[in-house]
Amino acid sequence: MSDLSYLLRISGQLRIDRIESAALAGNPLGDPADRPLPVYLPLGYDPEGSTRYPVLYCLHGYTGDAAALVSTRPWETNVVQWMDRLIAAGTMPPAILVIVDGFTRLGGSQYIDSIHNGDYATYVIRDVIGHVDAAYRTVAHAGGRAVFGKSSGGFGALHLTMAHPGTFAAFASHSGDTYFRYAHPSSFPDVQRTLEGFDSISAFVSAFEAKPKRSQTWYATMEMLGYGAAYSPAAARAFAIDLPFDTKTGEMRPDVFQRWLAFDPVERVATSRDALAALRLRYLDCGRRDEYGLDIGARVFTQRVRDLGLDVRHEEFDDDHRNVGYRYEVSLPALAAVLDRG
Amino acid sequence: MSDLSYLLRISGQLRIDRIESAALAGNPLGDPADRPLPVYLPLGYDPEGSTRYPVLYCLHGYTGDAAALVSTRPWETNVVQWMDRLIAAGTMPPAILVIVDGFTRLGGSQYIDSIHNGDYATYVIRDVIGHVDAAYRTVAHAGGRAVFGKSSGGFGALHLTMAHPGTFAAFASHSGDTYFRYAHPSSFPDVQRTLEGFDSISAFVSAFEAKPKRSQTWYATMEMLGYGAAYSPAAARAFAIDLPFDTKTGEMRPDVFQRWLAFDPVERVATSRDALAALRLRYLDCGRRDEYGLDIGARVFTQRVRDLGLDVRHEEFDDDHRNVGYRYEVSLPALAAVLDRG
Amino acid sequence: MSDLSYLLRISGQLRIDRIESAALAGNPLGDPADRPLPVYLPLGYDPEGSTRYPVLYCLHGYTGDAAALVSTRPWETNVVQWMDRLIAAGTMPPAILVIVDGFTRLGGSQYIDSIHNGDYATYVIRDVIGHVDAAYRTVAHAGGRAVFGKSSGGFGALHLTMAHPGTFAAFASHSGDTYFRYAHPSSFPDVQRTLEGFDSISAFVSAFEAKPKRSQTWYATMEMLGYGAAYSPAAARAFAIDLPFDTKTGEMRPDVFQRWLAFDPVERVATSRDALAALRLRYLDCGRRDEYGLDIGARVFTQRVRDLGLDVRHEEFDDDHRNVGYRYEVSLPALAAVLDRG
Amino acid sequence: MSDLSYLLRISGQLRIDRIESAALAGNPLGDPADRPLPVYLPLGYDPEGSTRYPVLYCLHGYTGDAAALVSTRPWETNVVQWMDRLIAAGTMPPAILVIVDGFTRLGGSQYIDSIHNGDYATYVIRDVIGHVDAAYRTVAHAGGRAVFGKSSGGFGALHLTMAHPGTFAAFASHSGDTYFRYAHPSSFPDVQRTLEGFDSISAFVSAFEAKPKRSQTWYATMEMLGYGAAYSPAAARAFAIDLPFDTKTGEMRPDVFQRWLAFDPVERVATSRDALAALRLRYLDCGRRDEYGLDIGARVFTQRVRDLGLDVRHEEFDDDHRNVGYRYEVSLPALAAVLDRG
Repeated sequence: MSDLSYLLRISGQLRIDRIESAALAGNPLGDPADRPLPVYLPLGYDPEGSTRYPVLYCLHGYTGDAAALVSTRPWETNVVQWMDRLIAAGTMPPAILVIVDGFTRLGGSQYIDSIHNGDYATYVIRDVIGHVDAAYRTVAHAGGRAVFGKSSGGFGALHLTMAHPGTFAAFASHSGDTYFRYAHPSSFPDVQRTLEGFDSISAFVSAFEAKPKRSQTWYATMEMLGYGAAYSPAAARAFAIDLPFDTKTGEMRPDVFQRWLAFDPVERVATSRDALAALRLRYLDCGRRDEYGLDIGARVFTQRVRDLGLDVRHEEFDDDHRNVGYRYEVSLPALAAVLDRG
Repeated sequence: MSDLSYLLRISGQLRIDRIESAALAGNPLGDPADRPLPVYLPLGYDPEGSTRYPVLYCLHGYTGDAAALVSTRPWETNVVQWMDRLIAAGTMPPAILVIVDGFTRLGGSQYIDSIHNGDYATYVIRDVIGHVDAAYRTVAHAGGRAVFGKSSGGFGALHLTMAHPGTFAAFASHSGDTYFRYAHPSSFPDVQRTLEGFDSISAFVSAFEAKPKRSQTWYATMEMLGYGAAYSPAAARAFAIDLPFDTKTGEMRPDVFQRWLAFDPVERVATSRDALAALRLRYLDCGRRDEYGLDIGARVFTQRVRDLGLDVRHEEFDDDHRNVGYRYEVSLPALAAVLDRG
Repeated sequence: MSDLSYLLRISGQLRIDRIESAALAGNPLGDPADRPLPVYLPLGYDPEGSTRYPVLYCLHGYTGDAAALVSTRPWETNVVQWMDRLIAAGTMPPAILVIVDGFTRLGGSQYIDSIHNGDYATYVIRDVIGHVDAAYRTVAHAGGRAVFGKSSGGFGALHLTMAHPGTFAAFASHSGDTYFRYAHPSSFPDVQRTLEGFDSISAFVSAFEAKPKRSQTWYATMEMLGYGAAYSPAAARAFAIDLPFDTKTGEMRPDVFQRWLAFDPVERVATSRDALAALRLRYLDCGRRDEYGLDIGARVFTQRVRDLGLDVRHEEFDDDHRNVGYRYEVSLPALAAVLDRG
Repeated sequence: MSDLSYLLRISGQLRIDRIESAALAGNPLGDPADRPLPVYLPLGYDPEGSTRYPVLYCLHGYTGDAAALVSTRPWETNVVQWMDRLIAAGTMPPAILVIVDGFTRLGGSQYIDSIHNGDYATYVIRDVIGHVDAAYRTVAHAGGRAVFGKSSGGFGALHLTMAHPGTFAAFASHSGDTYFRYAHPSSFPDVQRTLEGFDSISAFVSAFEAKPKRSQTWYATMEMLGYGAAYSPAAARAFAIDLPFDTKTGEMRPDVFQRWLAFDPVERVATSRDALAALRLRYLDCGRRDEYGLDIGARVFTQRVRDLGLDVRHEEFDDDHRNVGYRYEVSLPALAAVLDRG
């Protein structure tokens, strides 16, 4: 049993693969192109056997990374432990779980191709999936793949299924970023106030990194920089980011915010009918006390998809944005149930 | 010495006049047309004398009323006590202070003429000022009047000076509602969630009134109803209010929010050049940690007025939205200094 | 109708008497000996009539004063308004309400005779009651008097009934200070940290008074100074206070804390059997989420009194320490019901 | 490179040993006797070489475990990463780091021999150290060992050095539990309130474990149960715990709390002079805003040790109780500097 399997007390195996992504090579922000890729193989997986497994791709949230998702602490259950437990209980059939590392120096890539951050969508769709299909006994086509995640990971699941049709058969978005009109502008005042104390974005980032401990406001500031790097980069150069507000007054800049909205899942529905229609399961849930109003976002997204004549599985629960991993108990079996096996 | 003057330990006199407002008579919401009108007269005021005094009109904030503004508690200084203290210290010349009651069953009128609430602007401009000029030895023209307030009171000061030119010579807005794009939408998710538990706005209001103690969320809900009653009434009937979001999903309704923006001080600047130019003092301040982003609003307003070639006195300080009454030490002398005396 | 009666929209009368207390004259802390004394007279009260009324004495909490208790704001009901409303509804018989001002420069006297603050118990028992019985048509003996209050006011009600038997026939303590072992030591670390920044207690108090706005920690510091001034004064000199912890390390000083415990109502029960037995009603309530653990205090007090063979009316409710004035709806009728009428 | 070494991006090696502890075998609470034991070996460590290394034993805090301490997330540095970084920078000499797992079903053992939990002190002193000295090239005597930790881990470091003289040459306590008079009683009211809703301790624990997400109050309740299991067990039977308060009223039980105090480091100083004197370094630090008043505890402990004529390195910093891992930058080099090398 591997160290990690023992620490997590799971019956399957957890391996940490290492991939060198061509898509991320030489990215302007200077983040590594070599990334850890945790791969969970269920009990009974046999690299020489004839069975092929569907694969669930998990995307972490903002300020998370692959290492954080395999971390564990008492009385908590991480995504690997949930998979292992649900398979052991027969609640879902055996499947492979792959955890994608989409972290950047600014806290996250949103799994988007960006001239500023690098091509994180391509990295997932081509490099990660290519590696997994080559290295493991997978059902190597869209019918054998699902993608899911929480928060920015939920956004990534929505984005990748709409932007890259034919890759996945299903998505699950837990408290995913949608309806940016509520999710983001309420942070702009604090971000403007914070940045005012620095000569440049670069100076803020350096100060952030040098601090042993940061305030919530500093985290929110980094988050908006990360979104800007993904949604409204100014140039293919580190920290060349357009912000959706005037840095002097804080007034919103509608032209820049419009670029953000171009990535808002609720806005993309209208032009993504075919991609959405091709899916076997569209799953969203969100806590009804979500601090970013993402429950509203999930409602709006759901309604717009239903208006296209497509089904959505949409659930709400009484919780806020944090630590909602227990929702995997619902989503993982639902995803696995619609995937092909081989 | 009157009871109130003794309780407040002031050297001037505080009287509570009672006015019967024609503008508020028969208002659809059913609020009283007879209102208390606290009037502070400085030491030395002589109803038979020849001296005439300028008048500062004070507008309370949302969920406040005239009685609350004359309330007092240890270690705090209310607006009457500030006037009395500043005059006694010679920091400002003697002046009359009038506190306008603009409360409604929904928490506040925003000092606007509304088919739903009644004509609160007319009530101030015609009924209150008319009473004061008739009953006291005032400088009875625009040059002898200023208007000021905090939060919704600051909004009222901005609104009344722009909507009713020729009434006042100066305004002071402390943490006043401006730039609604930040101030309001961040509350919409909570309001939608709250209202979902009730059959109607009326049912919510009744439940609110029946509760001995309410959560912050309930207060925020009432506040948005109050703004809707002022900015986007649906009809001249109690609780006939258009809300700026879809009550089912929470999605914003741009058409309704546009009606709100029509009252946003930053939007009104462009069409109010003459009214603003006629003023002798335009004063705004706001704490740089304002929870509603009103510091951003004050910056945007200030910039737009300066873009018209007009001066603004704009100050910022290190505080949040609450209990910023100590700013009267700056604003009251500044207002009094520009008014005519007689 | 008086200004205050109009502002409060009550049908009875609210007067502000002024008393010059011999007990407080020349107190070391330098607080005024002349104090406001709000007196509420029910509708129908006739100074020339033959009816005599029982009197409810209300004691405010820490950082409160008499002026604060007659203050009002929308959607809140102060103690005067409760009395007026309950009498109007026939829920309780007409009675006089008297609000005692026990404020000091340090925030409150705890209604105790202290060499440092002055003789606040004597002031209540002799000066205030003497004035009221002389000036109004009262039932002028213990059977016609009750005392009640919230927080430190509840403490005062417990203290005065146990320390001054024969004065009152009943008490009501709402979230009153009892069981100091929970209520106070948890604040000592913050107080020690705060005071470490000042050369002396006097220097802290001056800084506190000079600040336009103070943190919760500063309020807590002032509060512990006030308790020290009441429970463990060092000398009859302003700011000569023994604190129940070492000012260098913060370690508790059991000898000083023992002096505090000598005033703890739960400790006094054992030696106050006769005083407690003479009462017609012993009423305590407390919110079950009280931040100071005073619900535990009320339970301990109740149990100890019951162990003496005496009844206690003890109620709990689902709330915290603040804004529990709605409990007057229960306590005021209960107090009035046991008092003599004439 | 091992998976964990890669995930943590360290240059040394991190292994997860597995030990079967005789001391924990058959413990009444039913916790596993086989435990993970993360061992960090510095770059250059050679199992066949002649160099011997001193060992730093790390004890986790309450609700932590060994797996949590090797977990990682972006922008944070765990204790293994700190060691690796400090050694790489030459700030400290190479040393072995061992992370002890002291978790129990109630959240933590306090590293104490308890009839209820099992013999966790013996487990550390005999089983863990025995394994490490047998399996690695260590300096296998007290002069080559130090023990440190945060919060309950700091307590453990203090406890083990005082209770088991001759084992370690130095300790570092970061925000360690000391001066229980402040640290614990302020939680008792909430714990009493919580337990009141359950028939038994066992029922609460089951409910806690079944919940996907728990409130802060529930965590605090579990914490006090864990302390009771360590300091005041009633019998060698799961959940047979004496609590330091009356479960009906919440009143403190001085007899039980006295048993807790018998483990309070500040109380143990007086009888531990020899054990303390034998140490080469006594190090404590704490944030000056510690929510449990442990900064006061560190001051009291320090003063009492100094009163014995012994040196203490005592530091304070401007922070609260959480996420103070950056203090390892100070403590780890200080500990390593006093240890023997071989």
